[in-house]
Parts: sequence; structure tokens; C-alpha cells
Amino acid sequence: MKIAVYPGSFDPVTCGHLDIIKRSCKVFDKVIVAVLNNSAKHPLFSVSERMELIGRCTKDLPNCEVDSFGGLLVDFAKKKNADTVIRGLRAISDFEYEFQMALLNKKLNPEIETMFMVTSLNCLYISSSVVKEICLYGGNTQGLIPDEIIEDVKYKMEKEC
Amino acid sequence: MKIAVYPGSFDPVTCGHLDIIKRSCKVFDKVIVAVLNNSAKHPLFSVSERMELIGRCTKDLPNCEVDSFGGLLVDFAKKKNADTVIRGLRAISDFEYEFQMALLNKKLNPEIETMFMVTSLNCLYISSSVVKEICLYGGNTQGLIPDEIIEDVKYKMEKEC
Amino acid sequence: MKIAVYPGSFDPVTCGHLDIIKRSCKVFDKVIVAVLNNSAKHPLFSVSERMELIGRCTKDLPNCEVDSFGGLLVDFAKKKNADTVIRGLRAISDFEYEFQMALLNKKLNPEIETMFMVTSLNCLYISSSVVKEICLYGGNTQGLIPDEIIEDVKYKMEKEC
Amino acid sequence: MKIAVYPGSFDPVTCGHLDIIKRSCKVFDKVIVAVLNNSAKHPLFSVSERMELIGRCTKDLPNCEVDSFGGLLVDFAKKKNADTVIRGLRAISDFEYEFQMALLNKKLNPEIETMFMVTSLNCLYISSSVVKEICLYGGNTQGLIPDEIIEDVKYKMEKEC
Amino acid sequence: MKIAVYPGSFDPVTCGHLDIIKRSCKVFDKVIVAVLNNSAKHPLFSVSERMELIGRCTKDLPNCEVDSFGGLLVDFAKKKNADTVIRGLRAISDFEYEFQMALLNKKLNPEIETMFMVTSLNCLYISSSVVKEICLYGGNTQGLIPDEIIEDVKYKMEKEC
Amino acid sequence: MKIAVYPGSFDPVTCGHLDIIKRSCKVFDKVIVAVLNNSAKHPLFSVSERMELIGRCTKDLPNCEVDSFGGLLVDFAKKKNADTVIRGLRAISDFEYEFQMALLNKKLNPEIETMFMVTSLNCLYISSSVVKEICLYGGNTQGLIPDEIIEDVKYKMEKEC
Repeated sequence: MKIAVYPGSFDPVTCGHLDIIKRSCKVFDKVIVAVLNNSAKHPLFSVSERMELIGRCTKDLPNCEVDSFGGLLVDFAKKKNADTVIRGLRAISDFEYEFQMALLNKKLNPEIETMFMVTSLNCLYISSSVVKEICLYGGNTQGLIPDEIIEDVKYKMEKEC
Repeated sequence: MKIAVYPGSFDPVTCGHLDIIKRSCKVFDKVIVAVLNNSAKHPLFSVSERMELIGRCTKDLPNCEVDSFGGLLVDFAKKKNADTVIRGLRAISDFEYEFQMALLNKKLNPEIETMFMVTSLNCLYISSSVVKEICLYGGNTQGLIPDEIIEDVKYKMEKEC
Repeated sequence: MKIAVYPGSFDPVTCGHLDIIKRSCKVFDKVIVAVLNNSAKHPLFSVSERMELIGRCTKDLPNCEVDSFGGLLVDFAKKKNADTVIRGLRAISDFEYEFQMALLNKKLNPEIETMFMVTSLNCLYISSSVVKEICLYGGNTQGLIPDEIIEDVKYKMEKEC
Repeated sequence: MKIAVYPGSFDPVTCGHLDIIKRSCKVFDKVIVAVLNNSAKHPLFSVSERMELIGRCTKDLPNCEVDSFGGLLVDFAKKKNADTVIRGLRAISDFEYEFQMALLNKKLNPEIETMFMVTSLNCLYISSSVVKEICLYGGNTQGLIPDEIIEDVKYKMEKEC
Repeated sequence: MKIAVYPGSFDPVTCGHLDIIKRSCKVFDKVIVAVLNNSAKHPLFSVSERMELIGRCTKDLPNCEVDSFGGLLVDFAKKKNADTVIRGLRAISDFEYEFQMALLNKKLNPEIETMFMVTSLNCLYISSSVVKEICLYGGNTQGLIPDEIIEDVKYKMEKEC
Repeated sequence: MKIAVYPGSFDPVTCGHLDIIKRSCKVFDKVIVAVLNNSAKHPLFSVSERMELIGRCTKDLPNCEVDSFGGLLVDFAKKKNADTVIRGLRAISDFEYEFQMALLNKKLNPEIETMFMVTSLNCLYISSSVVKEICLYGGNTQGLIPDEIIEDVKYKMEKEC
């Protein structure tokens, strides 16, 4: 059974993330969407809230599982019996960072492969931070974040700012 | 009448910005230099101070107007009857970000075009943050920030640090 | 009157080119699509054929003119009273080359500005050479080259290969 | 069964290619190494020679198959019941081109996914053309091309040049 | 006598830094490793601690000297009679920033040259920040930071987090 | 004695090349400008002509020597007792290729270091091929190729085209 981990901050999950999740669910037998528990940053949503939002958007994908992790990604992947990490690429600046992390993770655990997918065209300009800003200023977020969570993001942004 | 908006932080305006302003004033009938009112960052100069500094450096450009905006750029452009946004490009890393923003703005309002100009050679290494650092350490800022505002930047940097 | 030149090989014109032509016709009073007469390369279509194909696709754009040039672009622009050159950007590798040419053209004639537009999302992967290859292998070129010229390209590719 | 196609010129197969082949054989149930039959270029080895060289280096990989194709990659993948295309990435310039091709192939057939793997560190500087040049000048090619084929490449280069 | 300055934060020195130090000590008569005293950031180690750690790792390099500086790099280089600044490059994103800084430093003092070296393959994915994170989560840092300082970094990270 | 090799096609030498030559002559005790004898390409000037043109432009640099080489660069450097190779960088696309070659040369001979210098701002857009094209169309090449050789390039281009 081919298990893959798709790690990220997902604060919140965007249509770009969802595009990668759906496409990788066709390639692998099981895809674990893994929310990074990074205490240093100040996320908009808590780890459990982020997991709940992803779960809501992926409930029709039977081979998709939502989880969270702290510590090293390769350790989490190993614990989950996953031998592949999936990352989405939108642009060169993504690639630079991802390239370095893929080499580093290979050094930390040579058993774990990193595979990249190119984000679909209509998601190329989407990032969690840009989505939050558009929400804040009342811009149209349709096609940027999944319909299921638009209200949650609006509510949170209004409360925060 | 062709109206263009040139948005930015301009904290403070540099010779690189001024180069783009002068050149775009030749291409468009009116150019609105628009200072971004971004409450999240901690600028050196207030929005009104930044507007005053730009005004001082552009007083000989009759078709140049200085303004400020919060919220979404495309909403500001529409309100001002501008159908073009001007952005200066110095380097690849600029391009990546600008590319994403141009696509996003096209999604938010397809009527507004983004056009890019390449910064002149002698301004290629200039950024507001680098200029402030050189000022702080007493380096020579001639040719980096307009002569009209050098004293203001020095005074402010000394007070801040 | 703001006149802009949009130069290129256009061998043949693609939906990506047409996207830039249409959008720049909204920003400038007149746009001259200028086919490069580069004797060194072996084009699929002759210069006059390429001009005819472009003319067919732009017949509804009243402020669009089709022309050809040899020699230096800045000399052609000057002769045509154009003070702006328009270039489309799809990607980083485009940008590198365009950046160098914009600086060079500025050195050859500082009066001529180069302005860049980002190719629309649905045209991002289109290039004349890729389109010809797809035509050759019978792939679907709808949305890649304008409908008006699809038959011409197919006919030519079959004859050539 | 998860089938993936790994297309390329492989003129000749390098240690970099072999690294991607081995690693993708762990992720997928079957990997088809597909030699591109590109009549326009002048390869050093014929398609059947290139297939034989790859076969010799992959004889210990039971789920690796060697084949060749002309025409569109997505058509070949479909015919082989593969739903994934694998590509190796060494650098930014690779990425730009691959990014464009991945988007194009998605347009030609949305059922076929492209997945990228980062070439291992010790293969980062290897390309078929560089390897041939080193061979020509008598440089040490150990670790650049598989030991099994070094003599074949030397022999061919001496005959050609 | 050819003197070169190798500036950086070195918080802490990594195997990547040490690689550049050793190789530049072969090219230049004297290499001054210069720790940047940047009051704005919150380093893990103090300037004097960072100098001590570098000194410990370079004690076998007779023409290597460790120092620190605030203010402008070109002023420090001049004071030290160095006419070359050495910088290591790992990737494109490094290059962009370094390119801008080299041009800026040339403007500030045309007598000072910047020369770049490409980080060795096995250090390509190493950065001080990544090393600290791996230390924090108990990953294997062998080959990432010099053996001489591994215990110091572990001790410090545990105390901090 | 620190000896460096500066290799290239130099077909013909440009002001950009001369900028790197002059600056590296200050850093190293001896700089050998090495013309690549690449039989595969069709140069405008023969190897001996290219050497003569470089010699004419560098006659005031006592520690500059002009030579030519075929075969592997690292073998030539070793024969000349040089332990450094100098390369000029203008842009990202240069860097990608140079990065790969530096790693490859390190593999072929770890004793030889590659050091990079950033081309001066006013030479950033200059390449031998662009210079030849401008010459062909009667553009102004002052500041692009050294005054000493302008007539030779014009004469040759007229004869060729």
C-alpha cells in the first residue's frame, strides 16, 4: 500500500491545497494531510481548527486522512509508514526552498522520497496569506478558498483585525 | 485619458522609485503614486510624511499625483478611473511576487491591467530598506535617495535607532 | 497619441500573443504588431504569411496595425513614432532575456520605454514551437492558436514534415 | 496497479537518470522508461541502442520496463495505462521548462499527472551532453555514467569526433 | 598580501561555512571571518560566543582570523586592508540577494571586490536556521555542523526552547 | 603566486569581459585569459584572431596573459599551475549553468576552485552575440566592445552577412 504525507501549515486550507490533495489521492492509496504544529508562528486558526476545516473539505475523499505533527517531518512520515512526501509547486521561489528541504530530508532519512506536483493554473496565485488579506478587505474569495470554509475565515479575520 | 496607479510602501521614496515615476509619466496621461497604508508593518515614516516626501520630489511632474490607499489595490484603481497598475522590476525575486500579484489582481478585477517597467541600471541595487541601513551607518546615499529628502531620512534614522 | 510596438516572430501567432495584443489595445491608442524579419532562422511561415495570419485574427481591433521589420527594434519604433515597446512575460526564463534586451534597448535609445505584461493564466504554457509540435502529432490545439488559423498551421506542418 | 512513465532522450542514460529510475521504482508498481524518438535532433545513439543501454543498467529492477515513443507523451502514457509522468529536476532552468510542459500536458489530457523528483546531490551536475564532452576529452566519467555502458560511450564518441 | 573578508551571521557556524572558509584559505593569503553584529535580530549565540565557536573549528587554519563588525561591510574591509569580500552561494535565492549587495558595495566603495564560491554539494542544503531546527527536534546533525560545536548548539537550543 | 584562469569564447571580447579581466588582475598575481577552441561552433573570429584582439585590449595589464585551450578546462588550469577559475555572472541564467559547471569541475579536479565576479552594472546587458547583431544593423557599439577592436568587428560582420 502506497502511503503519502502532504504536510503544510494550512492556515487556512485553500483551493490550491485542495487541488493537490485531490490529485494525489488518485496517485496514492492513502494520503495523510499533516498540519504542522509550529509553535513559533502565530496562526489564525489553531491546529485542531485547521484539521477540522480540512476534514470538512475532504470528506468525499475516502483515502484522505487528516493529522497533525510537530518535530521532524521524516520522523512523522516514518511513524505513519509513508514513504513519500508530496509538495505542491507554484513558482520558482517555492522550488528553491522545496529543493533544499527535499535534499535535507533525504539526508535525514534516505528511505523517504519527496515528490512534487505543479499547482493547477487557476490556483497559481493562491496562498493562505493572500487569501486572508482579500477576506479582510471584503474581496471576492470564491475559487480561492473552498466554499465550505469561506464563512469561517471571514468570521475569524473580522474578529482578529 | 490614460490613468495609471503606481502603488508602493515608499518608506521612503528612493531614486529607483523616482526613475519609474518619471518614465511612466511620459507613457501615461496621469500617474497616481499611491502610498500603501499597511497597518501591520512598522514604517519609518507615517503615510502623510511619505506622501509629503514624494510630493517634494515630483513637484516638477505636472501629470503626477500623490495619494494613499488601504484595502485592495484594484478597488482603489477603479475608484480613481485608472485601468493600469505600474510596477517596477529589479530582479527575479521581484518578478515572482509581482507575477503572482498581477494574476491575483486580474482575478479580482479583469478590467485592470498590470504593466511592468525594468528599473534603470543605476537603480538596480536600491531598495528602501537598504537605503535606511546605509543612512544609519553614515554611508554615502547620494544617487540612492533623492537629494531633496536625504536630510529627512538621516534625521529620522538617528531618532529611531 | 500613445503608440506602442509589439514585436515578435509570430511563427505562427498564438492565443498567448492575441491575449497580449487585445489587452495592450485597451491601454494604448495604437498598437503596431511588428513581425521580425530574421533571415538567420528557418521559419514555418514567411513574413508576409505571418502578417496575413495576424491580420486575420485582429481584424476586429480598429487600433491594431500589422507591420514587419528587420534591423534594430529601437530604430523601427522611432520611425513609427512609437515610444513604448510591449513584451509579454510567461515565466522567469522569459524575464531574464527580456530584462537584458530592455536594458540594451534603453542604451541604444533612451527615449523608447519597454513595458511588460504577464500572459493570462490560460495562455501560460503556450509557445509557437509547442503549438507546432502538437499540430504535427494531431493533438488538440483549440485554445492554443486562434480558430481562424488552425487549418493553415495544420496544412503547413503536414507539408513540412 | 500504479504505472508511471519516465520519458527522456537518454542519449546516453546517465547516473542521474538511473537515480530517478531506481527511486521511482520504489514508489510505483511499474515504471516505463520511454525513449523519445525525436527525428529532428541528431542523437549519438539510435533509439534501439539507447533502449539497449538502459535495459542493461536496469536489469536488476523487476518492475522497470524500457520502451520508446514518438508523438505526444500523453498519448503514449494513455496507451500504456499509466496515469503518472515522472520527471527529474536538477535546477531552476529545468523547472521552468518542466513547469510549462506539465501545464501543457494537463491541458492535453487532464487524467495524466506529472510528478517531479529532485535529482540526488551527487548527480546534480550530470547531463548527457556534459558526459559526452568529458568522454571526448578523456576525463574521468566514473559516477557520471553507469559502469556498464562507459565503454560503449567512449567507443561511440571516438568514432563520431 | 591578498586579504579577504568572509562576513556572515554564523549563528552558529555550519559545515557549509567551514567549507567556504577552508577553500578560500587556499586562494587568499589571509581570510578574516567577520561576525556581523546585527542588533536588530535575536541571535541564539552572542557575537563573542559565535567568534569562539568559529575559532575552535578553524584553529588548524593558520591564515584564518576571526573578527566581528557592525556598520557597513566595505568600511570594515577597508580598515582591515582587505580588497576582497568572499560570499558562498547555495542557490538562486542566495544569488539574487548577493547580486544586489555586490552591486551596492561596489557603489559604496569601488576598491572592494566581491567574489563568490559555490558551496560544496554535501553542504548545499545546510543553513544555520535549518540546523537549529533539526537540533531542537533531536535529528542527526552530523555533517551539518562541525563536530567540535555540536554539544554547544544542542545545549543552547534546549535552554532556549 | 596566485594564478587564475579566465576562460571563454571571446568571439569577440566585450567591455563586459574586459571589466572582469581588469578587476581580477587586481585580486590575483597572474590572470590567464584562455580562449576556448571549440571546433563544434562556427565562430566569427578564429582562435588566433580572438587572442590578438584580447591582447590588444589588455596590453596595459602587465599580469594578464592570453592563451587558448581545447579539451577540459581543469586540465588546462592544472598545466598552467592555476588553482582558480574566474567566471563573470550577469544574470540568473548564467548562474544556473555556471553553478553546474563549477560542481562538475570540482568533481573532475577538486584542487581547482571556481570563483565568480558580478559583471559591473554598465556591462550587464552585454554579450558577444548581442554586440555582433548591433554591429550588423549599424547600431552604436560604444561602451559595448572596446574601442580598440570596433573596426575589426564591423569589418568582419559586413564580410560575413
